[in-house]
Amino acid sequence: MPGLGDATRGRILFGGDYNPEQWPEETWPEDVRLMRDAGVNSVTLGVFSWAKLEPRPGAREFGWLDQLMDLMQDSGIGVVLATPTASPPPWMGRLHPETLPIAEDGRIEWWGGRQHFSHSSAVYRRYAAAITEDLAARYGGHPALTMWHINNEYCTYDWGDESAAAFRRWLQDRYGTLDALNTAWGTAFWSQGYGDWYEILPPRLPHYMRNPTQVLDFKRFTSDALLECYLAERDIVRRHTPHLPVTTNFMPMWAGQDAWRWAQEEDVVSVDIYSDPRDPFGGQQGALVQDMTRSQARGPWMLMEQAAGPVNWRGVNHPKPRGLNRLWSLQAVARGADAVCYFQWRQSRQGAEKFHSGMVSHAGEQGRTFQEVKQLGAELAAISGEVTSSHTANDIAVLHDWHAWWGAAQEGRLSSEADYPQVVGAWHRALWEAHLATDFAHPEHDLSAYRLVVVPQLYLLTDAAIDNLLAYVRGGGTLVCGFLTGVADEDDRVRPGGMDARLRELCGLGTLHEWWPLDAGETVEVDGFQGHLWSEELEADGADEVTPYKGGELDGLPAVLRKGRAWYVSTLPEPDALRDLLTRIGADAGVRPVLDALPAGVEAVRRGELLFVLNHGPDPVTVQVPGVHRDLLTGAVVMDEVSLGRYGVAVLKP
Amino acid sequence: MPGLGDATRGRILFGGDYNPEQWPEETWPEDVRLMRDAGVNSVTLGVFSWAKLEPRPGAREFGWLDQLMDLMQDSGIGVVLATPTASPPPWMGRLHPETLPIAEDGRIEWWGGRQHFSHSSAVYRRYAAAITEDLAARYGGHPALTMWHINNEYCTYDWGDESAAAFRRWLQDRYGTLDALNTAWGTAFWSQGYGDWYEILPPRLPHYMRNPTQVLDFKRFTSDALLECYLAERDIVRRHTPHLPVTTNFMPMWAGQDAWRWAQEEDVVSVDIYSDPRDPFGGQQGALVQDMTRSQARGPWMLMEQAAGPVNWRGVNHPKPRGLNRLWSLQAVARGADAVCYFQWRQSRQGAEKFHSGMVSHAGEQGRTFQEVKQLGAELAAISGEVTSSHTANDIAVLHDWHAWWGAAQEGRLSSEADYPQVVGAWHRALWEAHLATDFAHPEHDLSAYRLVVVPQLYLLTDAAIDNLLAYVRGGGTLVCGFLTGVADEDDRVRPGGMDARLRELCGLGTLHEWWPLDAGETVEVDGFQGHLWSEELEADGADEVTPYKGGELDGLPAVLRKGRAWYVSTLPEPDALRDLLTRIGADAGVRPVLDALPAGVEAVRRGELLFVLNHGPDPVTVQVPGVHRDLLTGAVVMDEVSLGRYGVAVLKP
Amino acid sequence: MPGLGDATRGRILFGGDYNPEQWPEETWPEDVRLMRDAGVNSVTLGVFSWAKLEPRPGAREFGWLDQLMDLMQDSGIGVVLATPTASPPPWMGRLHPETLPIAEDGRIEWWGGRQHFSHSSAVYRRYAAAITEDLAARYGGHPALTMWHINNEYCTYDWGDESAAAFRRWLQDRYGTLDALNTAWGTAFWSQGYGDWYEILPPRLPHYMRNPTQVLDFKRFTSDALLECYLAERDIVRRHTPHLPVTTNFMPMWAGQDAWRWAQEEDVVSVDIYSDPRDPFGGQQGALVQDMTRSQARGPWMLMEQAAGPVNWRGVNHPKPRGLNRLWSLQAVARGADAVCYFQWRQSRQGAEKFHSGMVSHAGEQGRTFQEVKQLGAELAAISGEVTSSHTANDIAVLHDWHAWWGAAQEGRLSSEADYPQVVGAWHRALWEAHLATDFAHPEHDLSAYRLVVVPQLYLLTDAAIDNLLAYVRGGGTLVCGFLTGVADEDDRVRPGGMDARLRELCGLGTLHEWWPLDAGETVEVDGFQGHLWSEELEADGADEVTPYKGGELDGLPAVLRKGRAWYVSTLPEPDALRDLLTRIGADAGVRPVLDALPAGVEAVRRGELLFVLNHGPDPVTVQVPGVHRDLLTGAVVMDEVSLGRYGVAVLKP
Repeated sequence: MPGLGDATRGRILFGGDYNPEQWPEETWPEDVRLMRDAGVNSVTLGVFSWAKLEPRPGAREFGWLDQLMDLMQDSGIGVVLATPTASPPPWMGRLHPETLPIAEDGRIEWWGGRQHFSHSSAVYRRYAAAITEDLAARYGGHPALTMWHINNEYCTYDWGDESAAAFRRWLQDRYGTLDALNTAWGTAFWSQGYGDWYEILPPRLPHYMRNPTQVLDFKRFTSDALLECYLAERDIVRRHTPHLPVTTNFMPMWAGQDAWRWAQEEDVVSVDIYSDPRDPFGGQQGALVQDMTRSQARGPWMLMEQAAGPVNWRGVNHPKPRGLNRLWSLQAVARGADAVCYFQWRQSRQGAEKFHSGMVSHAGEQGRTFQEVKQLGAELAAISGEVTSSHTANDIAVLHDWHAWWGAAQEGRLSSEADYPQVVGAWHRALWEAHLATDFAHPEHDLSAYRLVVVPQLYLLTDAAIDNLLAYVRGGGTLVCGFLTGVADEDDRVRPGGMDARLRELCGLGTLHEWWPLDAGETVEVDGFQGHLWSEELEADGADEVTPYKGGELDGLPAVLRKGRAWYVSTLPEPDALRDLLTRIGADAGVRPVLDALPAGVEAVRRGELLFVLNHGPDPVTVQVPGVHRDLLTGAVVMDEVSLGRYGVAVLKP
Repeated sequence: MPGLGDATRGRILFGGDYNPEQWPEETWPEDVRLMRDAGVNSVTLGVFSWAKLEPRPGAREFGWLDQLMDLMQDSGIGVVLATPTASPPPWMGRLHPETLPIAEDGRIEWWGGRQHFSHSSAVYRRYAAAITEDLAARYGGHPALTMWHINNEYCTYDWGDESAAAFRRWLQDRYGTLDALNTAWGTAFWSQGYGDWYEILPPRLPHYMRNPTQVLDFKRFTSDALLECYLAERDIVRRHTPHLPVTTNFMPMWAGQDAWRWAQEEDVVSVDIYSDPRDPFGGQQGALVQDMTRSQARGPWMLMEQAAGPVNWRGVNHPKPRGLNRLWSLQAVARGADAVCYFQWRQSRQGAEKFHSGMVSHAGEQGRTFQEVKQLGAELAAISGEVTSSHTANDIAVLHDWHAWWGAAQEGRLSSEADYPQVVGAWHRALWEAHLATDFAHPEHDLSAYRLVVVPQLYLLTDAAIDNLLAYVRGGGTLVCGFLTGVADEDDRVRPGGMDARLRELCGLGTLHEWWPLDAGETVEVDGFQGHLWSEELEADGADEVTPYKGGELDGLPAVLRKGRAWYVSTLPEPDALRDLLTRIGADAGVRPVLDALPAGVEAVRRGELLFVLNHGPDPVTVQVPGVHRDLLTGAVVMDEVSLGRYGVAVLKP
Repeated sequence: MPGLGDATRGRILFGGDYNPEQWPEETWPEDVRLMRDAGVNSVTLGVFSWAKLEPRPGAREFGWLDQLMDLMQDSGIGVVLATPTASPPPWMGRLHPETLPIAEDGRIEWWGGRQHFSHSSAVYRRYAAAITEDLAARYGGHPALTMWHINNEYCTYDWGDESAAAFRRWLQDRYGTLDALNTAWGTAFWSQGYGDWYEILPPRLPHYMRNPTQVLDFKRFTSDALLECYLAERDIVRRHTPHLPVTTNFMPMWAGQDAWRWAQEEDVVSVDIYSDPRDPFGGQQGALVQDMTRSQARGPWMLMEQAAGPVNWRGVNHPKPRGLNRLWSLQAVARGADAVCYFQWRQSRQGAEKFHSGMVSHAGEQGRTFQEVKQLGAELAAISGEVTSSHTANDIAVLHDWHAWWGAAQEGRLSSEADYPQVVGAWHRALWEAHLATDFAHPEHDLSAYRLVVVPQLYLLTDAAIDNLLAYVRGGGTLVCGFLTGVADEDDRVRPGGMDARLRELCGLGTLHEWWPLDAGETVEVDGFQGHLWSEELEADGADEVTPYKGGELDGLPAVLRKGRAWYVSTLPEPDALRDLLTRIGADAGVRPVLDALPAGVEAVRRGELLFVLNHGPDPVTVQVPGVHRDLLTGAVVMDEVSLGRYGVAVLKP
């Protein structure tokens, strides 16, 4: 199978979405001049060009794209060609209103924005296949073409009738019989027993809480229905160009797709990262997405979109201060990216995203934004040869599973404060601040290569996953489980005792009397630290080590338990405490930080033999780096320590 | 007519909703063993079993229920049998979509949750009657049957077309002619004059504010339409079992039902109480509901549902700390409950409420929750003989009326902060903290037996109610009125002067110039205390005693007025001030606290000759109880004082 | 053309909406008695009387109105007669559901409130024209009639199908061809190219952000569609009574109407002012509306509605403290009002607005509210002769344009905090606090008469507007531009460089690198003051004077720039700083405050030769007024200084 290397050919891809059809043709040569100036070697064409390519049903207007493909070829810039299927032309909604998605309360999502397609619409899928087929046929052999980009940020839901029919077929595949479905969904509760497949609907607006397993299955179905859309287009382009890689760009930690499953179907895993420049943990959040994406790719990956400056969809959209775009871009490379791309090349003057930045901002060539992009392009070119294709194995895996998230996010849960992404983020932050390099993994993955496995929260675990965790610990691994792990089975059926008995036994827990969720801002005292979000009234049974709650209703009861190499943490320790706990557990498991004695806010990442040192703060720092290195960015020789300016980066080669 | 005594037969009913159809049959003997262990003597079967009983239109599957009725009979446990009509099977929505409720903005409430029925749907009512008829015919003679439970927590609204037709019929009954309706609704305002009954709709989503009397009548109609549903089923079961009592369970202070009217149609008044364990006034709020329910029942009543631990529908759902379940259960008994029941027996493993606690929690028999339930069961059994059927008359009545609430809750009111339940709760809390035992009453009830009548806020009063209040004071009673009382007549027509002239005259008020509502968090100074929520610019006229506002725009104007035995309080005094005011007024009216010198947080309640002393705090207390008593819970003899531990209770018999 | 003078005939109009059809006929003589007592000389009849006039389709019931017109005539009170078309009778919605507006998410706005008409409904327009025709024919010659009042507070939107068709026609008129529309809307973005007019819809609920130019044009269309409704009715009454003025009442700073455009079609510009009595800047906000309305009228104007006491549509609705109604009424007169009217004469006892005050409140004749109204009536009568028709030219214009507001209010903007009315209000407040009298103007108006033109924020400027501003400065004018000015062209296309190059050159700006919007509550340090809401990373180029940012990312970069007489302010200075800046710029431009050395909270306004001095505070003040004046309210002679009590006013004649 082709991979990212077939597109990079040894260079870090640098560029972005290029939408020249929004500009007069006079702008194009200017674009090429600036691209060359900035070292752009890859552009993505055609992401939202359907109405341009097919202005009337069945029409084809390829001339403008022919011209652009040739222009890119002449300019030495590779093309990632997108199928335009994320935004159907207005005629489709008008002629085929059944292609429009229906919200859970029956409202229609009209055209006039984007992504106004029902994933389950046969008409939509037919038109999407046809335009994909013709694009692939026409450009499959074009020498500028390096990769296919299917659709864009798949993210839609549909509660309408055609989707309902597809949901039923999906359920028939999953359950076979209505009896099995009724059992899995627990429909004996609230008189929901189904006697006919036609009675089953997507979980539309109810009078009161929905069946949580129906909701869970609808999320599974939605991810799969979108995946079907992707696969149909992928298979078409793959038939035409079996030698070229295919991708679709993920949104990070997006609830709507099981990206573990999707990544298996991609030749290149790509992602869009838009951390908030004003978020003090923006760097860590980027690291989380990068670790996740690298783990999905099992090697180098593609940063498909980021913003050179502000986005335009937050309440207040802050620009990137000088140096931050470079820092975060090199951080992505450090964590495995072989492609650093942007939405978009030239900031739009019209439309809904004209205040979303581009590599060339409204300020144009003289603008600081473009000047920094240009510097970055040169630096990426300079380190390309030492970087691309290299990959580093880590000793730690954080487990993450969309199904567990989906199960936990139900309406009738114990606490609306215990937000899954926030909990995962808190654990990853602790590892990041401890300078412990980490992968992500699925709970059913082979974990044997890891010294330490961290489960921030996996509410729902299959029997196979539990087998896997037990085998991992039996095999010598160290396991840390956060609260609300192993509560439910695959059908969201609460396991007897409120937490799987084998997991409780593994970690030294006896009876779990009650969950004690905490209010927003409330804390619970534990011996040595404060806990947030959650606490539990439980008994130890066979634990080797117990840290108790102090004071309050839980005084003296176990908060943190260890039995052998298995840990259970029944609250969310405050950040420093969680960092220190993981540092200690990591040390016991033989895992060392990337570098010792790093100043606060400085991150060190190894990729292959290179060591990236990144200063996430605005103040200059000096970092101890034992030994002699060469900084690939400056060419300077570094002896035992390196000084970094504000947002500074060193790429050190021994 | 049959009553609660026909079901209790001298025992306090103890048990809860039992949904064994959600569990494998192997669980049932285990259930029985634990029920016996816990002293359970009553279970409610079939609350949400419609799809199980009627899996296809017209089908009947009674076998499983036969088995369970027999099992309960064999186990010596009485059955409260529910009609399953609160949650129609999925086939009903599919085959008869007109049975689904329509929200005010036209959205459909689909099946997949519960209570997805239009109260006015003829098809729904026909199916509901048929299954009720067959249930009554089959089980009316079963020896385990002790009571009927109709539907569950009636609470739905419907703005759809069939409901519109029913609303028109209801209005024709009420008004006879369109002229009368136009007059009552004041349709001359904003060009709303109706010329044809068919023009009248439920108050659907408008461009701008709705007609408030239309909204008021729609609330009246909705309560009555739901009551029709209840009565239809009640009459069916009563025909089969005239000797057995019938109930339907209220939600406390639920806006959707005029429970005074409903209670008259019940043989047993039952209610569900779910105070928040973390609410520092949870005990008082329970007391309010208990006082209200006892007053509706005019004697012993049934606590149909409470939670042994957490619920699952708040944002953060806290468990009950050790002892709280016992405390609140015995508090209910103290205030007249002859039945202490739960939703539900065994915590569900599946469905929307699997994180709502059960008597047997996920932790099972060893869990603290079940252990406490078991202790409570034993204690209730121990005191049963001394308690059941006894009733205590009180000297104080708090007036409450749904119609007044409905009228006051309109869109275009002066203040959205002056929330009716909050105001009623504040006045009840003051009485509770003053240890003044109180009933609730309707403003048209005979009040002559009370020494003190408190009107926290009755925005709307009929002429008859005003006659009643005047006669009450003329007859020697003491009356205290809070602000926004007597503002409107039955049609929500503002009375001349902004408050009924007779009421103003009664309390010594002259001109009421303007209402001065306060912002959230704002206070107004009164001589001696601070007021919240509201203030008024008014003149005294004939008042015997006036407490003035101090400072600000209202400086020197009357805040609290007394004329003879009639008081008017134009603001909401801060809690201690309201408590002291009511203590003084009570003393003048000859009403004494239940006990003197009670420590803070300790409640004393008399029921028959028993004195319940309840410690609502976590710290031990010693309470002065003059004389010699026996504590029925411990058997100990108590001389002049009793010590209570955290959440401790004594049930003292002289 | 007729004007306001034809209705006032030298008296200040004093009165309000009169809805006697809501009251029994016995009330009418009492109304007349109180009106005479209060000096009422004008009432508005029939605002919401459609169902009364046309109880069935095509019926006419004029008898009651005949009676009232005669009664007013006999009482010497003039009548402003309204067309009743703001609230169609219920039969219209029932027989013609297509007349009901559709919300952007497809929900119907039903009858039962008011304004439930689609502006584009042919059926609605036909019925509206017919009743208007018959009203004009019947009452055009009635001697009591002084003015026509068309509809009421035009404010509706409609996303339905008939509106969609009208929108298409409007777009065809604007653009001629689909190509032109596609270009203007930038439909190449997100595949929105339209190939057929029928594909175009109002901007209905999308999956993700809408096309901003489509939204902008929909706002333009909506204003124009409502204007068509107005014009149709205006032309009918004008045909009957060419000698009488016609108006429709604006809501101040209402987003839905381009009032500059509308005012051109009115003989009298009238407005409704409902500042919050509890708002510490209520007086300034009234002044803003008064300045705006006077500028639209280019002379005297009509205060059509205000409240004598509380309104009923805020969360908490405060009454007006003693004196405030008088103060704000005289402030309106000072700023050009020749009519001081209220909604409504007698507070309603029924309907959605029964807690909205009237000139006669629920407290009636003895109520403080009416007593103050009566005093005001007498005072207005006393000063009438000196006031009416006079007008004062000002030296300052604040530029305001609805299209700029509409363009800036888009979903995908940089900051949701930079709210247009708030920014305009902040600049006006600074001028008001500096006692600098100001007009409002449209950016394409002739500005040559002004010494100083202030542009708080005009995101969107046409080329003609930019020409106009440049010519103004070239002609010797002083211009101050706030941030986000000149960003986009008429089609909401961002101008190259992010701000029009000619404007940048005018104010001494070079490259505008990035916008730096500030979070809510965040401030930025500038040399000498703090800025709010916004900051910018830009370069000066040719500026004569620069005030820099201090500290932070923008340290040393220009915050405020001046080049000759053109200023640019890239943040929102804190109130005192903006006041001082405008005082200085005003002084340089030769503009002086109305009076010097005014105490805080005291406002001075000149109208003709009169000087109004208004104390907006609760404490007495003494104000220096050089020279000898007579106070028209007291008759007293004022020598060099005047003392004002709480909320006191003096009307001084030299």
